Amino acid sequence: MSINNGTYFPPASLDELIEKFPTPSVAKTVRLIDYLDEGVPGPEHFTIGEGPVPTLTPDGDGDILIQVVAMSADPYLRVGIKPGGGKNPGDAMNGFVSGFVLASNSEKWIPGDFVGASTDFTNIQVLTKAAQAKTAIWKLTGFLDAEHLSYGVGILGMPGSTAYGGLIDVLKPNKGETLFVSAACGAVGGLVGQIAKTQYNCKVVGSCGGDEKGAIILDKFKFDHHVDYKKCDDEAALAAALKVAAPDGIDMYFENVGGMHFQVAMSALRPKGRIAICGCIANYNNASASADGQQTSPVFNHINIGAMIYSAQRIEGFMCRPWLSGQKGNFLSDMAKWLHEGAFAVPEETHFQGIENWAAGFQSLFTGANKGKVVIMV
Amino acid sequence: MSINNGTYFPPASLDELIEKFPTPSVAKTVRLIDYLDEGVPGPEHFTIGEGPVPTLTPDGDGDILIQVVAMSADPYLRVGIKPGGGKNPGDAMNGFVSGFVLASNSEKWIPGDFVGASTDFTNIQVLTKAAQAKTAIWKLTGFLDAEHLSYGVGILGMPGSTAYGGLIDVLKPNKGETLFVSAACGAVGGLVGQIAKTQYNCKVVGSCGGDEKGAIILDKFKFDHHVDYKKCDDEAALAAALKVAAPDGIDMYFENVGGMHFQVAMSALRPKGRIAICGCIANYNNASASADGQQTSPVFNHINIGAMIYSAQRIEGFMCRPWLSGQKGNFLSDMAKWLHEGAFAVPEETHFQGIENWAAGFQSLFTGANKGKVVIMV
Repeated sequence: MSINNGTYFPPASLDELIEKFPTPSVAKTVRLIDYLDEGVPGPEHFTIGEGPVPTLTPDGDGDILIQVVAMSADPYLRVGIKPGGGKNPGDAMNGFVSGFVLASNSEKWIPGDFVGASTDFTNIQVLTKAAQAKTAIWKLTGFLDAEHLSYGVGILGMPGSTAYGGLIDVLKPNKGETLFVSAACGAVGGLVGQIAKTQYNCKVVGSCGGDEKGAIILDKFKFDHHVDYKKCDDEAALAAALKVAAPDGIDMYFENVGGMHFQVAMSALRPKGRIAICGCIANYNNASASADGQQTSPVFNHINIGAMIYSAQRIEGFMCRPWLSGQKGNFLSDMAKWLHEGAFAVPEETHFQGIENWAAGFQSLFTGANKGKVVIMV
Repeated sequence: MSINNGTYFPPASLDELIEKFPTPSVAKTVRLIDYLDEGVPGPEHFTIGEGPVPTLTPDGDGDILIQVVAMSADPYLRVGIKPGGGKNPGDAMNGFVSGFVLASNSEKWIPGDFVGASTDFTNIQVLTKAAQAKTAIWKLTGFLDAEHLSYGVGILGMPGSTAYGGLIDVLKPNKGETLFVSAACGAVGGLVGQIAKTQYNCKVVGSCGGDEKGAIILDKFKFDHHVDYKKCDDEAALAAALKVAAPDGIDMYFENVGGMHFQVAMSALRPKGRIAICGCIANYNNASASADGQQTSPVFNHINIGAMIYSAQRIEGFMCRPWLSGQKGNFLSDMAKWLHEGAFAVPEETHFQGIENWAAGFQSLFTGANKGKVVIMV
């Protein structure tokens, strides 16, 4: 995990942080009420559990106590609450959070350090040394300021490292190539297209639904073309819309949604084309067709593998971990540098206030009520 | 293209070669009679055209005259004779050949040099400087002897470089991983599995049809398991047979056939698994479903792209050219070294005698009458 300080912003003192973010008197955790196989998850599927505020114990060498300021709600969490998906009724939900260190028994951390982590959705919690070793945890001190702690679950967290790794190391753009990206106005898609445009001079075609999102990707993110998939009734219509934007085909497709987008991208993919599979939100709310605990719905796409030989095409799935952890690339320093330079726009964030509204934020991902990254400010 | 001499075998003199391979008095070329969309190609679909023996012209700077000793018959040629596949009635067939230089106006070649090339299936022919620049052509001098010129269309040619590049640079084996390879007794598959076993200590499961081929891959190639696909009536039966051989799944699949093999491999593929798409012979004799000149039959496989994300799996098509040309890796020297060391067995070769029997050799690829590499000794 990356535990170096950045140099773009001065550190904050613990006193300043506590004044800005008062320490909670009760520990609150988002918990699952029951499995949900099919359909859109909402507030009725989650509850808030309460408990005493934890403290560090003297024998807890390496442990830290953290206060969570921002929690993430991400589409991939939908898979975990299906039967067999990993979560059971009553379980704490967990995912990406950002916040700061309140107390430390670790030489790697000092009180006031900004931190990003994958952990339980609990507002105040101890991260033991053992827990730190097993999960994703990264230091954000110097990479952002207290006003922008939400970036720790966005551009400087999972979505940022997903965009960074998926574009740079999976798709491997060449200067001037054409990139197609779905969920283009989202937390990941918005970054993918902007890094491709500003760092690789790519032509970028973004798919997202509606004029409002279309205006964001064209005017704010400076993408070259908007494909409005909501105006496309079927695969042929989407293919025709992409053809208008990219008449000579595409070199890369960054897949965030699955379904007909994949088919259309595959049919437009040029020789030596690459597809990075990042997400598949189109399928997440479908019923699992098998009862054997399979995590994702078996909604199949089809490919002509014979046609991939002469064209030397590649399809590759990936997750952010190697880049978020610093094992590959220089995610935190590169992204913070671009952010500091104003190289491109920070994708939209839709904020929900209070841990009690985590479920409402999560729901918005599937109803399209959000714009960009959904953040719950605790 | 690779034009360095090897050091494993002494060069031959032109006189020795001409004594062993008398210079033909007529130039003969394999020609296509008519398109064949569906079904197995055979001798009735090809004819031999005759013409005068060509010579070098004084102004042909860089040109060489070559005598072909061995011609290849490869499954991929089936695609070219479909309507719209590239060949028209009367056209010369072309593909991989090996032979030696009879006369040279090029400083890169001397008479007696062994040569491999992708060119017309003509027994004696001029390769102009321009033709050499456009095609695959590589020097075999020092990498083999006159007794084994057929290796130039096998282990030291297209099949060898396909196995080498596809395994080493596309699949990227880690020590001890499990590899599944189809057409395991073939010119490519036999090498893939042996390189994986001897150089990467992989567990190798090979699929091929019948006890005779099974004995070859187990006894001669030292593969760990034989899956007899001819005993598997459907995908479920093939999956069960693979499960017996590799109960914990596979890390890599080298795809030579397509169809149900791909589905079975995909369902057995472990996290971080890779599939290299090399060939798709199961589809080549099917009718093209579209009349728009599409080269390969659109026989679709299906994939669950959502499941590829968490598992970080990859599917990649490739062709041999970068490795055959020396642009990537060290194919010729590595393979000749392994051959010289006796690191593994040379895959079977089935020889057909005389250019007139090229079509019979080609047909044998689709009837299973061949074992390993089909070579037409001209």
